[in-house]
Amino acid sequence: MKPNDLPTSSPTPWTLARRAERMNPSVIRELLKLTERPGIISFAGGLPSPVTFPIEAMREACDRVLTEDGRSALQYAASEGYGPLREWVAASLPWAVDPAQVLITTGSQQGLDLVAKVLIDSGSRVLVETPTYLGALQAFAPMEPQIEGVASDAGGVDVDALLQQLGAGDDQPESMERRRLLTLDLDPASSPVAAPRFLYVLPNFQNPTGRSMGLERRQALVAAAARVGLPLVEDNPYGDLWFDQPPPTPLTALNPEGCIYLGSFSKILAPGLRLGFMVAPASIYPKLLQAKQAADLHSPSFNQRVVAEVLKDGFLDRHVPTIRALYKRQCQAMLSALRTEMAGLDVQWNSPDGGMFLWVRLPEGMSAVDLLPRAVANNVAFVPGAAFFAADPDPRALRLSFVTASEEQIRIGIAALAQAIREQQQGLPTCCTCGPG
Amino acid sequence: MKPNDLPTSSPTPWTLARRAERMNPSVIRELLKLTERPGIISFAGGLPSPVTFPIEAMREACDRVLTEDGRSALQYAASEGYGPLREWVAASLPWAVDPAQVLITTGSQQGLDLVAKVLIDSGSRVLVETPTYLGALQAFAPMEPQIEGVASDAGGVDVDALLQQLGAGDDQPESMERRRLLTLDLDPASSPVAAPRFLYVLPNFQNPTGRSMGLERRQALVAAAARVGLPLVEDNPYGDLWFDQPPPTPLTALNPEGCIYLGSFSKILAPGLRLGFMVAPASIYPKLLQAKQAADLHSPSFNQRVVAEVLKDGFLDRHVPTIRALYKRQCQAMLSALRTEMAGLDVQWNSPDGGMFLWVRLPEGMSAVDLLPRAVANNVAFVPGAAFFAADPDPRALRLSFVTASEEQIRIGIAALAQAIREQQQGLPTCCTCGPG
Repeated sequence: MKPNDLPTSSPTPWTLARRAERMNPSVIRELLKLTERPGIISFAGGLPSPVTFPIEAMREACDRVLTEDGRSALQYAASEGYGPLREWVAASLPWAVDPAQVLITTGSQQGLDLVAKVLIDSGSRVLVETPTYLGALQAFAPMEPQIEGVASDAGGVDVDALLQQLGAGDDQPESMERRRLLTLDLDPASSPVAAPRFLYVLPNFQNPTGRSMGLERRQALVAAAARVGLPLVEDNPYGDLWFDQPPPTPLTALNPEGCIYLGSFSKILAPGLRLGFMVAPASIYPKLLQAKQAADLHSPSFNQRVVAEVLKDGFLDRHVPTIRALYKRQCQAMLSALRTEMAGLDVQWNSPDGGMFLWVRLPEGMSAVDLLPRAVANNVAFVPGAAFFAADPDPRALRLSFVTASEEQIRIGIAALAQAIREQQQGLPTCCTCGPG
Repeated sequence: MKPNDLPTSSPTPWTLARRAERMNPSVIRELLKLTERPGIISFAGGLPSPVTFPIEAMREACDRVLTEDGRSALQYAASEGYGPLREWVAASLPWAVDPAQVLITTGSQQGLDLVAKVLIDSGSRVLVETPTYLGALQAFAPMEPQIEGVASDAGGVDVDALLQQLGAGDDQPESMERRRLLTLDLDPASSPVAAPRFLYVLPNFQNPTGRSMGLERRQALVAAAARVGLPLVEDNPYGDLWFDQPPPTPLTALNPEGCIYLGSFSKILAPGLRLGFMVAPASIYPKLLQAKQAADLHSPSFNQRVVAEVLKDGFLDRHVPTIRALYKRQCQAMLSALRTEMAGLDVQWNSPDGGMFLWVRLPEGMSAVDLLPRAVANNVAFVPGAAFFAADPDPRALRLSFVTASEEQIRIGIAALAQAIREQQQGLPTCCTCGPG
């Protein structure tokens, strides 16, 4: 509400910050409400399969933590996080990480909020993949950046296009110095050629597309970023969810001083705990920590101790393979159903090597946003792809999650989606309220 | 780190946002580390007494939630919070609150972060009590406001001084209209006379002073704020911790449309759960919700269900009186020890009616910051008052918490503090490393 929208009788006119205009409801989270309708098969939310939640291990860990260490577990604690959990995180990563570089966050979403606060000025440039994680766009937006998509293909960021976009496409040896001058001399709010504050990348089984970056692309990206002085923010919530082989090395492992790394316990344990972490270079860790203190003092100490208790003795070595096997089966079920049900419909999709999502393109001329009400009427939900673009959305794209629904639901839901596409092609009227009958 | 501080060999020059310059370590949280030294008696942190934590009730609730509803409790959930917990909060408050107005937050500290994001523009004015909660100053600072202290006395905000500060001290009938013009026409970043975005107030057993506002003062403040169109942000983490009688009505109850109300489960259950809540008018709730989504998606669903489970059947009616009785005894022990140990030292203190803190003024010419190393050498810790002022700190002030230490520790600690003051007055050298021996 802007001041001039206030009723003149208002006793206290609230004046919203300018950034509040950029805060808009998440399409995905609004959809989550829609999909709570009984009977709907949802491929929309990125909800891990609840059958994978380690309920028994959690119950034992809660009991043990409260019995042995209840007073500490329920008390205020250090903003950095619980020491043994930070040590576990550092030891779990495939490069040399000092636990002092690990900051426990309230989900990895909070890591994005802290990155935005510490690195983004109003008007400064931020680069993202095309498309990218919607929650990152929402976390960055309040700090009022100019968000720019970087051209990307089925293998992730197009490194040559990135260099062109940064004005370094002709291998200019002076680009590093040029960047420094730009950073020092120009007000980022007023100059469109200022150096971007960072590039945000999801190299593994990306949300929303499910695509991954190969090793060569990763090496090229890190080398290019280092050459032009572009910091990378690497988000890796899905990396453990591979089907047949682990993904290549993290970007951060190739240049730890030039990257912030975000991780999460949501996909390998449970999202309802809201625990994630970030690993940051010593040069910026203190500011991220201070932003964390101001944001929520610390992440729940109880949850941190319970997770540390669950994790010890190699729990994940036994647990995560069961998640991988389940998600692989469900992904295969969805791919199989797509092949069967979409036959002859000119629909395209990819075949991810892990993660939770795959990416679909509807036939020429069809809009995923327009299709959604008809799909919901047919008792199936997805997320239109448009929400995931910083600019120039692809109206034909949509995201399907294959992890929440069972294999049988997947077969039924994909058939219902194909039916909705056929109805849309035939121009039949949609009836949202009468349900599937 | 500013760009021109970067080593020239840096492969990726991180450029910090301007707001990062305002992010500085919390004196209190740094002190918490200091006070982890074995043997130190700490009156510094605002740590609730761990003997009050309902460990057994928590254990039973964790078990029941995981057994009966584990999959939902560990899944992603709505950003607004868990429905039954929102309903409990609405029903617990002494004015008509629709559960739809309640937003569950990751501690009430997060409420301050969300308020800052939604209401503060760079350069806009924000008013706080003198002194005020350090964590609020830290939460507001990243959004780059001009924070101004409002003159306050032992009864809280001085309403006449507030009106003078707002240019409305002569009962101008046009002040409301004048504020509207200021808000509409002037850029807050460039105008020192723009209307403040809000006044942040802790009416009950304030942190850091322990003082409370009486009913008449509350009525006068709410009436004045409504008259000049000043929104109020009311923070009430300590209101349930009264000794002999409950505090007067919340400010928000007197004008719900003009106030945001923040509450917490940290002081009546346990801070390690990181659960608080805010109640906001319908006109700004959606923006706070969107800021919440972007910040951490939602507060831990597991913790919300466990707390809802603990709270049902009137648990707090049995539990909170035991906290009140304990804190009253500990406050009396501290007051008694101060009377005994500080005799003849020209030290002043107040006598709170509840909460966790009391406020001490050292003798003329003595600095609490300078005293602290000597106190720590004597194995007692406190927080210098200077940290709690938006400007013009009182160097003689310090905050003592009476809730963390036992009655015996309180007697020993206050004696040690008195000894440190005597040594300081006598100009003895401090020896921080040799301990008390």
